[in-house]
Amino acid sequence: MPGFSAAPSNAPANTTFRPPSVAQVEIAGFWGDRIDAVASRTADILYDRCVEARMLEQIDPDVPSPGVVIPFHSMSPTGNEFTGATVTTQMFWDSDWGKTIETAAYSLYRRRNDELERKIDAVIDMFGKLQQADGYLSSWYQRIQPGLRWTNLRDCHELYCAGHLIEGAVAYFQATGKRKLLDIMCRFADHIADMFGTEPGKRKGYCGHEEIELALVKLGRVTGQRKYLELARYFVDQRGQQPHYFDEEARARGADPKDYHFKTYEYSQSHKPVREQDKVVGHAVRAMYLYAGMADIAAEFADDSLRVALERLWDDLTTKNLYVTGGLGPSAANEGFTSDYDLPNDTAYAETCASVALVFWASRMLGVGPNARYADVMEQALYNGSISGLSLDGSRFFYENPLESRGRHNRWKWHRCPCCPPNIGRMVASIGTYAYGLAEDAVAVHLYGDSTVRFEVNGQKAVLAQTSRYPWDGAVSMTIDTERPLRFKLHLRVPGWCPRAQLAVNGETVDLPAVLADGYVTLDREWKATDTIRLDLDMPARRLYANPRVRQDAGRVALARGPVIYCVEEVDNSEPLHSLVLPPAATIEATEAPDLLGGVVTLSAQAVADRTSDWGDSLYRNTPPDRERAMVRAVPYFAWDNRQPGDMRVWLRE
Amino acid sequence: MPGFSAAPSNAPANTTFRPPSVAQVEIAGFWGDRIDAVASRTADILYDRCVEARMLEQIDPDVPSPGVVIPFHSMSPTGNEFTGATVTTQMFWDSDWGKTIETAAYSLYRRRNDELERKIDAVIDMFGKLQQADGYLSSWYQRIQPGLRWTNLRDCHELYCAGHLIEGAVAYFQATGKRKLLDIMCRFADHIADMFGTEPGKRKGYCGHEEIELALVKLGRVTGQRKYLELARYFVDQRGQQPHYFDEEARARGADPKDYHFKTYEYSQSHKPVREQDKVVGHAVRAMYLYAGMADIAAEFADDSLRVALERLWDDLTTKNLYVTGGLGPSAANEGFTSDYDLPNDTAYAETCASVALVFWASRMLGVGPNARYADVMEQALYNGSISGLSLDGSRFFYENPLESRGRHNRWKWHRCPCCPPNIGRMVASIGTYAYGLAEDAVAVHLYGDSTVRFEVNGQKAVLAQTSRYPWDGAVSMTIDTERPLRFKLHLRVPGWCPRAQLAVNGETVDLPAVLADGYVTLDREWKATDTIRLDLDMPARRLYANPRVRQDAGRVALARGPVIYCVEEVDNSEPLHSLVLPPAATIEATEAPDLLGGVVTLSAQAVADRTSDWGDSLYRNTPPDRERAMVRAVPYFAWDNRQPGDMRVWLRE
Repeated sequence: MPGFSAAPSNAPANTTFRPPSVAQVEIAGFWGDRIDAVASRTADILYDRCVEARMLEQIDPDVPSPGVVIPFHSMSPTGNEFTGATVTTQMFWDSDWGKTIETAAYSLYRRRNDELERKIDAVIDMFGKLQQADGYLSSWYQRIQPGLRWTNLRDCHELYCAGHLIEGAVAYFQATGKRKLLDIMCRFADHIADMFGTEPGKRKGYCGHEEIELALVKLGRVTGQRKYLELARYFVDQRGQQPHYFDEEARARGADPKDYHFKTYEYSQSHKPVREQDKVVGHAVRAMYLYAGMADIAAEFADDSLRVALERLWDDLTTKNLYVTGGLGPSAANEGFTSDYDLPNDTAYAETCASVALVFWASRMLGVGPNARYADVMEQALYNGSISGLSLDGSRFFYENPLESRGRHNRWKWHRCPCCPPNIGRMVASIGTYAYGLAEDAVAVHLYGDSTVRFEVNGQKAVLAQTSRYPWDGAVSMTIDTERPLRFKLHLRVPGWCPRAQLAVNGETVDLPAVLADGYVTLDREWKATDTIRLDLDMPARRLYANPRVRQDAGRVALARGPVIYCVEEVDNSEPLHSLVLPPAATIEATEAPDLLGGVVTLSAQAVADRTSDWGDSLYRNTPPDRERAMVRAVPYFAWDNRQPGDMRVWLRE
Repeated sequence: MPGFSAAPSNAPANTTFRPPSVAQVEIAGFWGDRIDAVASRTADILYDRCVEARMLEQIDPDVPSPGVVIPFHSMSPTGNEFTGATVTTQMFWDSDWGKTIETAAYSLYRRRNDELERKIDAVIDMFGKLQQADGYLSSWYQRIQPGLRWTNLRDCHELYCAGHLIEGAVAYFQATGKRKLLDIMCRFADHIADMFGTEPGKRKGYCGHEEIELALVKLGRVTGQRKYLELARYFVDQRGQQPHYFDEEARARGADPKDYHFKTYEYSQSHKPVREQDKVVGHAVRAMYLYAGMADIAAEFADDSLRVALERLWDDLTTKNLYVTGGLGPSAANEGFTSDYDLPNDTAYAETCASVALVFWASRMLGVGPNARYADVMEQALYNGSISGLSLDGSRFFYENPLESRGRHNRWKWHRCPCCPPNIGRMVASIGTYAYGLAEDAVAVHLYGDSTVRFEVNGQKAVLAQTSRYPWDGAVSMTIDTERPLRFKLHLRVPGWCPRAQLAVNGETVDLPAVLADGYVTLDREWKATDTIRLDLDMPARRLYANPRVRQDAGRVALARGPVIYCVEEVDNSEPLHSLVLPPAATIEATEAPDLLGGVVTLSAQAVADRTSDWGDSLYRNTPPDRERAMVRAVPYFAWDNRQPGDMRVWLRE
């Protein structure tokens, strides 16, 4: 995927691209179906599961505090499946409410849901009642562990929860116009600003789980209050400084700083100041949230020192530590990174949240201008390792997204740590915000597919409408609508996976290489209402090979078409998946399968398989197994485990 | 390996072959070096480590009971390495004393060691003092958990410990002539016989960890007391009968039988009566010890119903559940078996004790007559997955024996559960007993190598001496020494791995196919003192392939020569091991390396490797890596991790 190694952006640094709001983009086609699943099912399910898990009791000041702290590892005696019978409380449940509110908010654009809106209003009322006079708000520290607030930022998600509630507040305000939660969170943010900072009398703290940084940027943007951006910048700048806040904080509460479960502050990317960091380390979601926040601050404060660090980190992630699915963080032990090129397939943790958060980071790297280096990876994570976490019908979830399974990794109804369901929910429901970038004098198209964006450029309104069966077909038709002729730059992405693209404006072929930079075509011209653009992206099925330093993929091949990574599932293949061998010369056929998995394109090829039928009983022998012809049939990875349970693998023997 | 699938024995059922005693066999050559390492280092180390782990305190009635019970999982905070700082007690430490005594006993044949003998005598004195008037003996139940004896046979190793002390007693008596421990254990065995049985008033119990069955057979044989054989038979027969003893025992101590950590009685092979069992299940060492005991009982009581069950179990193990190294039991969770053909390489548990115990079982299956079906597997476990557990110098140990490592699996000084060191110690030090089988009118040679066996056949004394560089060379010269001409049958094994063998007696070629049955040549003739036999076993380097149902070995090849399985280690290879690909046509060269790893034969081949140097930075691309020439150099698996730590793998890409 050439996009992975494209050069850093050469776009002018003074052009800031911002995403459109959810309200500005109408989505149909592939993502329309996904949004419908979220808006019509997932959004309600999130609320219902929170209630079933007794998360209302934790935040409702009118009911007695549940007050029972059950160790995290004891929550689910039957594994990941939440049984519903276990009553518990969690320090991070405010964040799940935040993301549930955010998902509901975006879903309301798609589909009116008065009942859900009423329920969310009630939740917001509870947070309003819960908030203390000084603005402080944490159901955990107010109701479960009173008296301990701000004593353990390292482990206890206090600012992380605030961040997710802020994001929920911003989204809910934008979707409904209701300010209540926004006002609550502004008061809390003001309180946080009083508590934290480098000024005398303030704590020089920051959260062990990053999130509040990017949330404060959103809050600053929606309220127009620069103080929130500055607070976000403080959290970014202070991270990892010496003397280390987590050491001092531990000693202040009478603990030994060395008595730390995760051993190293790399776990929370606080091992050194962020501008000195050059390796993606530790907990993958935390890392992505931090980098997303750093990218926001880099853009808002035109901070090149942050941008340089981010480009190093981006290189490290995308050239050494990223699954072909856009998954990341191979290890369950730290929910994160291990060592370069360590990408195990069957034990891949690759948390749904981590790929979602990579989309967040990548989209923010596009803030300084269109660059396929970031957009290609954003698309890779979007179509594969993130939405794999949500069943096609929007009702069941993956936490881990392995690239190989023996049939026992299956979607669950709920999780003991339910971070992923509302995270994938909010990402899908706001997909329109990732599809476009809007600047003063330009609009960038990052993602193709049936959609319409309404925007203002050079002071005038314009509409860009795409018609496309993307990602199943590379043909994209676009129309421009403006009240009167209007000059602006239109940046169109030519995906790194695409071997040949053709572009025509009003039927006239454009010399593509001449206008291509950083993986984007730039059309700088006066546009008028009848203009049409036709982009044809060749979308052959293709093979992918991993860097030979990745030991787990040695001798293996993955299949892809367009942005979609494929896998083989047991249900579609007559031979055991481990016995299938794809010859290097085999032609890979793409076939429309409108009735399969909600409508996909499948890939198939004439392959061979180790023959088991005539091997006999012996376990070992001196001659290899015979080979027999076998068809390989692959389906999109994101759609796996939506039928009967069975083996799955992305990387096939070649 | 054709031997794996050889037909069941067709030898006459009324011929019983018994192993020679350690005293009857002199060993030099390959095994001589191994015995020297055990006799000169391991035997002392075992005692010293037991003392360092404060195991003397548990058994010495003259010192206060340590009395502190530390949970098993807390014993080794730094992983497997025993730090020496942790004071603890264990319910199974009598068994470690038993095996330490046994190793010391066999070692005394090799090398006089007055100091060790004195120390062992002192340990025996402690057990003597500890024994109660009724014969009962258990340091755990007498000193750590008094009052609870015979209340939890399922979990607490009470009879297992007795078994190992019995084996130690028998060996020590044979080696030194000292009866003290033997008498102690006879009294304890008599007490056990009073407690357990089907007679009214007795408990119908048996041990959750098999071992006492085979130990009682040894005790019966050495004392000539048939009652011990009958007690052993009772334990075998009663196992898995309904109503289930472990259920009743649990209820009797007020516990819920369902509250069982391992969920299923398959864990201890007590899920059904032994004659109904046809799958090797549960804890691998327990299974092997049970089957060894069953084989003893089958031989002693000419019980065909047991033999039929054993042959089914043997098939199941060797055709579906055995690593190519003779390792078994892939899973750490139950230290045992999972599902058929599930043989992961990097996470292989393959406990040293399990391969040692497979040698025990296989050797007992030879009790009814020579059959390569059993001897080939015995040899496979002996030369590979068992002695891999002991460093070449006899001082460091493996518990797990994976077939692939990323360099972090290294030998340790001692283990929190030190069952393996004395188990491999006693096996190596008594290797002579596995090399030959002695019957009334016959002698069988199961293992080749420099050794001399003194035996009686048809009422007369004879000596058979082998000269051979086996396993590095397949040429074996044998001489017979008798006082006067003597007719007896000589059975010579032709290993299943051998593609071509030649045999000559006194220079005259023997028509081998004509005298070959069950993988053994039978020479039935009158032997005299000057007779010489020459057996030439072709020993080419060869490739092994796994049944294609083994998903972990698909597309892979292992290298072997003679009985020795090879592996590649990072230290010998310039390319990353995962990048090496052995072409199907590559010639494999065998090279003598007298100065390497104590003197081995290495294997090497011209292979290719995925080239990393010119791949560049990208993580994925559309074309496979280039290939470059690379030498593959392999060393015997048993000798791995005796140099600097590094990657290792048995199964190479082909």
